[in-house]
Amino acid sequence: MEAYKNFSDVKDSTSSEEHPRVVLPALCHKFYGLGWMYGTGGALSIKCGDKLFTTPSGVNKDLVKGEDLFVTTVDGVDIVGPSPEKRLSKSTCTPLINAIYTKQKGVGAVYHLHNTGAVMVSMLSPGVEFRITHQKLIQGIKKSNSEKHFDYYDTLIVPIVENKSTEDEIVDSLLNAMRDYPETSAVIIRRHGMYVWGPTWQRAKGMAECYEYLFNVAVKMKQLGLDPEAIPVPPEGAYT
Amino acid sequence: MEAYKNFSDVKDSTSSEEHPRVVLPALCHKFYGLGWMYGTGGALSIKCGDKLFTTPSGVNKDLVKGEDLFVTTVDGVDIVGPSPEKRLSKSTCTPLINAIYTKQKGVGAVYHLHNTGAVMVSMLSPGVEFRITHQKLIQGIKKSNSEKHFDYYDTLIVPIVENKSTEDEIVDSLLNAMRDYPETSAVIIRRHGMYVWGPTWQRAKGMAECYEYLFNVAVKMKQLGLDPEAIPVPPEGAYT
Amino acid sequence: MEAYKNFSDVKDSTSSEEHPRVVLPALCHKFYGLGWMYGTGGALSIKCGDKLFTTPSGVNKDLVKGEDLFVTTVDGVDIVGPSPEKRLSKSTCTPLINAIYTKQKGVGAVYHLHNTGAVMVSMLSPGVEFRITHQKLIQGIKKSNSEKHFDYYDTLIVPIVENKSTEDEIVDSLLNAMRDYPETSAVIIRRHGMYVWGPTWQRAKGMAECYEYLFNVAVKMKQLGLDPEAIPVPPEGAYT
Amino acid sequence: MEAYKNFSDVKDSTSSEEHPRVVLPALCHKFYGLGWMYGTGGALSIKCGDKLFTTPSGVNKDLVKGEDLFVTTVDGVDIVGPSPEKRLSKSTCTPLINAIYTKQKGVGAVYHLHNTGAVMVSMLSPGVEFRITHQKLIQGIKKSNSEKHFDYYDTLIVPIVENKSTEDEIVDSLLNAMRDYPETSAVIIRRHGMYVWGPTWQRAKGMAECYEYLFNVAVKMKQLGLDPEAIPVPPEGAYT
Repeated sequence: MEAYKNFSDVKDSTSSEEHPRVVLPALCHKFYGLGWMYGTGGALSIKCGDKLFTTPSGVNKDLVKGEDLFVTTVDGVDIVGPSPEKRLSKSTCTPLINAIYTKQKGVGAVYHLHNTGAVMVSMLSPGVEFRITHQKLIQGIKKSNSEKHFDYYDTLIVPIVENKSTEDEIVDSLLNAMRDYPETSAVIIRRHGMYVWGPTWQRAKGMAECYEYLFNVAVKMKQLGLDPEAIPVPPEGAYT
Repeated sequence: MEAYKNFSDVKDSTSSEEHPRVVLPALCHKFYGLGWMYGTGGALSIKCGDKLFTTPSGVNKDLVKGEDLFVTTVDGVDIVGPSPEKRLSKSTCTPLINAIYTKQKGVGAVYHLHNTGAVMVSMLSPGVEFRITHQKLIQGIKKSNSEKHFDYYDTLIVPIVENKSTEDEIVDSLLNAMRDYPETSAVIIRRHGMYVWGPTWQRAKGMAECYEYLFNVAVKMKQLGLDPEAIPVPPEGAYT
Repeated sequence: MEAYKNFSDVKDSTSSEEHPRVVLPALCHKFYGLGWMYGTGGALSIKCGDKLFTTPSGVNKDLVKGEDLFVTTVDGVDIVGPSPEKRLSKSTCTPLINAIYTKQKGVGAVYHLHNTGAVMVSMLSPGVEFRITHQKLIQGIKKSNSEKHFDYYDTLIVPIVENKSTEDEIVDSLLNAMRDYPETSAVIIRRHGMYVWGPTWQRAKGMAECYEYLFNVAVKMKQLGLDPEAIPVPPEGAYT
Repeated sequence: MEAYKNFSDVKDSTSSEEHPRVVLPALCHKFYGLGWMYGTGGALSIKCGDKLFTTPSGVNKDLVKGEDLFVTTVDGVDIVGPSPEKRLSKSTCTPLINAIYTKQKGVGAVYHLHNTGAVMVSMLSPGVEFRITHQKLIQGIKKSNSEKHFDYYDTLIVPIVENKSTEDEIVDSLLNAMRDYPETSAVIIRRHGMYVWGPTWQRAKGMAECYEYLFNVAVKMKQLGLDPEAIPVPPEGAYT
């Protein structure tokens, strides 16, 4: 990998405000504010033309700068990296991120987040699936490999895979879960967080927000004795 | 609809700081921060003279810009829209927003929000009403079609209508709920969110905050075994 | 009351950064962010020399500007007000704020807040007192009319008075509670919020934060079956 | 201690953006936003070369400025202090902070925080230890006096010492807890908060976030009837 020198070599294809070197630090800051990227955890990746821009490993995500990103081809060939004196490493999530770009159609952004809602529902779901139905924000979730969205009346199912010590060890589980649930745009890692993806960084961001909202609503429902999977019956005299 | 060109044609009637093109993006950002506009959901609308300014559909609301708004007459005739190359669509909430402007007197702003408190109380209320009494913030709610506010001792009632897949399908329910509850300044959409309105964008904002505060207090009360509808009795020796 | 003209007549006694016209809007914004000033509720007041600066009534508190403040003498004589065309009114909390400045010694700031923690503990406390002991943040509370602070081992007692429709009707209750609890730096208004005061705006701010922290900890303790009033016993082998 | 005059005498060793006089106020602001530094509580300290930079006592931490810091040697000799007219005092946490720098190897930053999660788990843990296992963010915690991190499968143990009226009285307990738990990078003070440390300010910050995340997850687990110490068993058909 050649040393990263300046921004000019990557700044030509997009306007500056929408460039991954501007967007990714801003997203890191926003997701940190939502509590999804504490410690040095998580990783964000945006595909821009034939290049992948990805946040580095082991850095406080609220402190990531545009110059810290790793730029590779979709096949994993290094194009540009941060200055060597920064001693940054590629994200340990790289194999999982690449697996998602490779196996799913039309993905433009992949985020790995340590969102508490995903962790809580992974502990409250005894099996390998999180399920919820009859929530407006289900409609904010796009079916992967398709242009369709889930409907309000659908049961949204998110597969849950077991966590391991390293991200490498989760790759096969992620691949198997994506194979078994081809419509899902997210996979929960139990007691860890989630991977979520979408056709653009904006749509992946919106879906991340909807998934975490739905996880948190499900936790609150369980605290109050309500079942997120149950199909509700409108009351007598309902406005329908 | 003619293409949107620049701001000068709509900037004459108000000072820049109070203009809907400045206010609406700022409100979107504030409500996103409160967790009410995740995904691309929700819609905000301000009436300015005889023009309605409304946020577009399908855009992350924390990223909305002043130039993205749709400007129409109160009768729904297009005046100005965003640049066609942005490929933005009018909010799917437009028929509901217009119904509120048409049926309620003196409305200057309508907000559609995906606030979790509204969703939670809609699931905890078995019938078609949310009720709470003896809370100071009840007094922050204006009676619609009137200049009076609710009183501390009143029972605030907010009608709840059932959700459907599309906003279009909710129009009749909203109209019926507004007919049956002429004093309400908000309608809850079950498992979805709420519509709230007021005479100015500031007062509609204040009421949105009061409603969501009251919903959240009611949820906390139920978690702690308290009944939001019960009339409290002061203890012996109370300071009254 | 003469019309407010410019800042120069009140800017001489303090440096600009610490002036109430700078501090109060910043505090409003901070307290709004903490969820203590939703709707148009609450009021903040700072004493600067022989002048009281107080936020106006009926304005969204996150939108208050320095020019919106009312300036009076401690005896309630008007000195400067906002521009008449703004049609602002004095805070309805004025009689309570003045009662606190008059009855308590060395008060430099009074805040009236609609903090949820105060409302929740007022509903969970069957009598006229909130009580908590053995919490570090108790030591952040100064005894009113004294330079001493409460100790970790003390039981912090905050009197609770009943709410009424108007602030005017609460004045006597507030006076009686301050008479009966001369050491308290705050009074809870049931199902409403609290009044809190201190020798400077900074110390009143710190105490507001400590009180609300303690209220929230007490609510969480009750949710988990713990008693905020119980004196804890260190376990065997404790590090003491 | 000589009076503090200007920044030039301490600005030579690091770039301005990374200087403790820039970093510590920014950290105070960030931790205040997370609810860890209400009132005037808490203290942050960074080691820069052979100098310790520490926040002052009794100041609202969200209002701390770079010029307010106390600079000492590691042995406690005063180098630079804030302007005398500011009447600031050294942090009462100084003896505990110094004890950590002295007893632990390679510490570059020590933070004392009043985080609610630490307080809640200290009340829910009947003994002298907080324990949690099988959580991804456990891997964000470095073993003190070592370059290794805890593993996902490890049980993270954080010692809990009893609180006293003054920080001075806790020094021995802290020393004993550090002696008994040489791998811990944090000590919980019951009903008070925690001390946390790391080799750099960034890594100590990341660990503070991971600890508080884990405390909060443990509280939520207990609210939902789950045991943070139990070793989970993957369900049948798990993706492993």
